[in-house]
Amino acid sequence: MDRYRIRPGETLRLAERSTDDDGGLTKDEGKERLKANTERARDLQEQLYAEGQQALLFVFQAMDAGGKDSTTEHVFGPLNPQGVNVASFKTPTELEQRHDFLWRVHAQAPPHGLIKVFNRSHYEDVLIVRVHGWAAPDVIERRYDHIRHFESLLADARTRVVKVMLHISKDYQLERFRRRLERPDKHWKFNPGDLDERKLWDDYRRAFEVAIERTTTEAAPWYVVPAETRWYRNLVVSQILVDTLEAMDPQYPEPTFDPADYPPGSIA
Amino acid sequence: MDRYRIRPGETLRLAERSTDDDGGLTKDEGKERLKANTERARDLQEQLYAEGQQALLFVFQAMDAGGKDSTTEHVFGPLNPQGVNVASFKTPTELEQRHDFLWRVHAQAPPHGLIKVFNRSHYEDVLIVRVHGWAAPDVIERRYDHIRHFESLLADARTRVVKVMLHISKDYQLERFRRRLERPDKHWKFNPGDLDERKLWDDYRRAFEVAIERTTTEAAPWYVVPAETRWYRNLVVSQILVDTLEAMDPQYPEPTFDPADYPPGSIA
Repeated sequence: MDRYRIRPGETLRLAERSTDDDGGLTKDEGKERLKANTERARDLQEQLYAEGQQALLFVFQAMDAGGKDSTTEHVFGPLNPQGVNVASFKTPTELEQRHDFLWRVHAQAPPHGLIKVFNRSHYEDVLIVRVHGWAAPDVIERRYDHIRHFESLLADARTRVVKVMLHISKDYQLERFRRRLERPDKHWKFNPGDLDERKLWDDYRRAFEVAIERTTTEAAPWYVVPAETRWYRNLVVSQILVDTLEAMDPQYPEPTFDPADYPPGSIA
Repeated sequence: MDRYRIRPGETLRLAERSTDDDGGLTKDEGKERLKANTERARDLQEQLYAEGQQALLFVFQAMDAGGKDSTTEHVFGPLNPQGVNVASFKTPTELEQRHDFLWRVHAQAPPHGLIKVFNRSHYEDVLIVRVHGWAAPDVIERRYDHIRHFESLLADARTRVVKVMLHISKDYQLERFRRRLERPDKHWKFNPGDLDERKLWDDYRRAFEVAIERTTTEAAPWYVVPAETRWYRNLVVSQILVDTLEAMDPQYPEPTFDPADYPPGSIA
């Protein structure tokens, strides 16, 4: 999935990157591959859990209606829930606001053996906060540094960090908002305030570009994934998951006993 | 207390720094000044608590028997416990070991309005860990950077960080160990393993020198405090506390009401 990875030093122009792609596959082919990836991810996850020496942190960010919830469900839902958990970051609580912006995020860093999914993250503090001017420019500026340092701390502790922006167009967002309004079972996902944020589309896009450029590193890369064709979006994210786990190469630990000491029939 | 502060770029030779000082004061004068400092610190602490916009983190490190517990009790004990709390860092738990070394420390960072005292800290991860070679040299090397970055994150979030090494001699430590063995009510503080650490005195001293040189900054300075004359040690630490709080200059918040609306007798 290298073609969606943003390299350190690269200039990112989101307007020039596709939001809708199918990789030249049919939907059936895509679903078949997702299934294969899921099986592979399940095996690798078990090895990660058994090994207990590394962790994986998967960060999702997107414009509203970009598909963070759905991708999380489709890609991570089929894994063993004992080894995966999701943290959703909402408006900071009063106690969280009385700390540095990484305090609540660091607390949710996964222990070795686990996969953690962040649905939104510390990046909100350089996205929505930047767009609304809730912090001074020099404060935001230093936050990029703090984020890089924080993620390198995790990397040094054998926690692999992967960051995914689910990339959609303004038209696609409108279509999804309409669907939320039409379907009573989706009303809970609609917030009239989202329409105000939608008016700031260009500011958000610019904030994403800067945040991604400033924080994509070899150890903690950003991927910009075209997210409008949902089966393809899920396939790409599952491929990033599998590729990352394979690069981490978790191993079952050596047994602390000799299996030969327990021949068939020896346990009763 | 500038004379005990270690400046960025300074070379630290602990062997050349006094472990026993009285600042030219008598014990009575010293106790009188401690009392005055304590009163001042109580006022400033209340303002810090009422303001709720800044926090203070006070880190103590020392050789065994250096007086961390006693200093904490004498200097911070008289403050309002609602606004002060102490975190003692022991051997990391199994869950803590499955995270980066700053995970458990960051979780204990004080919220705005509070004073936090660390009895031992993240510095153990570049002191005992270095002395025993429990981590590779390049890992320790990067930890100094991680510590500087972490403390600058706190500083940017208006959490002042002050670090104090209570400085004693090897002879003084022996005297304190003997006292712990002679007094049944001090037996709980004696650990035969401390004698093994004592054999590594010079290695510890070097580890302290490097750690302090690498992590003393304008925003988060180290102080090396002569700690054998205990009333003077307490006085110096209380002076650092008062000076730091005065520099933070916490203010009672403006009332959200007009006191004139509530003349005497108006509340019944």
